Amino acid sequence: MACFGDEEGARFGIACAGSRVLTGALPADQALALRDADGDTMAEALRTAGRDPAALGPDDEVLRRVRAFVELHVEQGRALADPDVYDQATSAVAVGSDIWPHGRWRVDIQGAANHAGTTRLDDRDDAVLTFAHLVVAARAAAHRHGGVATMGKVRVEPNGVNAIASRVTAWPDARSSDERAVRAIVEDLRAEGEGRGAPVVEESWTATTRFDSGLVNRLASTLGPDTPVLGTGAGHDAGVLATHGIPAAMLFVRNPTGVSHSPDEHADPADRHAGVAALATVLADLTDATR
Amino acid sequence: MACFGDEEGARFGIACAGSRVLTGALPADQALALRDADGDTMAEALRTAGRDPAALGPDDEVLRRVRAFVELHVEQGRALADPDVYDQATSAVAVGSDIWPHGRWRVDIQGAANHAGTTRLDDRDDAVLTFAHLVVAARAAAHRHGGVATMGKVRVEPNGVNAIASRVTAWPDARSSDERAVRAIVEDLRAEGEGRGAPVVEESWTATTRFDSGLVNRLASTLGPDTPVLGTGAGHDAGVLATHGIPAAMLFVRNPTGVSHSPDEHADPADRHAGVAALATVLADLTDATR
Repeated sequence: MACFGDEEGARFGIACAGSRVLTGALPADQALALRDADGDTMAEALRTAGRDPAALGPDDEVLRRVRAFVELHVEQGRALADPDVYDQATSAVAVGSDIWPHGRWRVDIQGAANHAGTTRLDDRDDAVLTFAHLVVAARAAAHRHGGVATMGKVRVEPNGVNAIASRVTAWPDARSSDERAVRAIVEDLRAEGEGRGAPVVEESWTATTRFDSGLVNRLASTLGPDTPVLGTGAGHDAGVLATHGIPAAMLFVRNPTGVSHSPDEHADPADRHAGVAALATVLADLTDATR
Repeated sequence: MACFGDEEGARFGIACAGSRVLTGALPADQALALRDADGDTMAEALRTAGRDPAALGPDDEVLRRVRAFVELHVEQGRALADPDVYDQATSAVAVGSDIWPHGRWRVDIQGAANHAGTTRLDDRDDAVLTFAHLVVAARAAAHRHGGVATMGKVRVEPNGVNAIASRVTAWPDARSSDERAVRAIVEDLRAEGEGRGAPVVEESWTATTRFDSGLVNRLASTLGPDTPVLGTGAGHDAGVLATHGIPAAMLFVRNPTGVSHSPDEHADPADRHAGVAALATVLADLTDATR
């Protein structure tokens, strides 16, 4: 039984900070220097909580004791709730097979600073207009290739109401169950950006994280032959451990709306109970097996 | 001869602050409380410069002494440099006739916070995507009605790379020589916004500011029958004085690129000299007339 701190990264901005520190994926000195919205470092937060910051770091001894890691999570999407895809009688809980490949890119859109009132449309090089075309293009590319693309973060300069934007920086996020689809989405976006003088550069790329296939199959067979097996587009502690070579897998509980990272995220009580029961069942099986 | 402080509003954020304070359009207490980017108030800046903040305010005695106000300015557009519109031999200097009607609106786009990786395209309510469609629609409406529309200022929430935007606020700016065209642009944008659940509300509206017609005609006839007469899409001290009932007009110097509010703003030396000569000519004429 393990619980990792700050899986969401809500306080210090880095998701799965606990598992990343434990495996060494996030060096302890970097973690301790992270600051929350109030400017307090993780080191200060640990001290306030009565913990010793010097004790933070990778711990091979702890990791060696982990024979298998199974993470129970609400589904962050509504595949399980879709009657066209899964029999609703048997889709309260699924086994997670992998974490989708995903990446973060950056697009730099250079416009020309000019007066919003006096510059004729034909004389404009409006970085916000270019950004708008790229947002629409990214969405169309995601539709075309069967993935998702998001421009959730954007910086506009000078960001004044009477000034044509001279520069926009945006960070496209693209994912799919299929790595080729992600690459195709980004290639389409890159072509669109090039045609508009806005280069798209890669900031990070994470290939598919496959959970241990033996563990995935064992969970699925333990829970029954109709148990759905599906991938996820979000990162998780289980993915961090899997990347470190530890047998890991996940269980997903059906989410009727698919809403996640929002106060509206929820699951039906019966499905939550089914999730807890499934976790208990697979842990009992694994405990028997590794005893 | 008069010079007004902070015509651009670059330091304290309000354009034409000097003329607005002098005419009372900007109350002195509001002006003194304005803060610059360093957090210093205008009152503190005046004290640092050895001036008495208490002396700031409207001054009818000063205004009564202004028989006519003629403001020399580079054209903030390239109408005068367009050989299809004006004979380039006689378009180095123009007389300004009016300031275009213009306004600022605000569009509130409500999306649904959700995870960028796990939310299917069909399940998304992405406020950035709606914003992108409105930017493209505003540009198309401006083309259609013969005006300009700009979305130079935008705020995205939560503005995270892996979060679908839950809210975007943007401030459309629309202008035209024709008030009906501005209204038509905004009506089209409002209809587009309503169709997407994003209301457009008016934050400010300034009707056409007409410069004194007697003064405009006198300047044009003094400078010669071929002198162009044109309106402008930007606000100016002359407009503030005109609104206060003081005879005011402007002279514009040809701008080969139309670029303004940018380090690239410039005019040819010969045209600049022509502008100074034109100002001297009309001031000599007006001084004779009012002596």
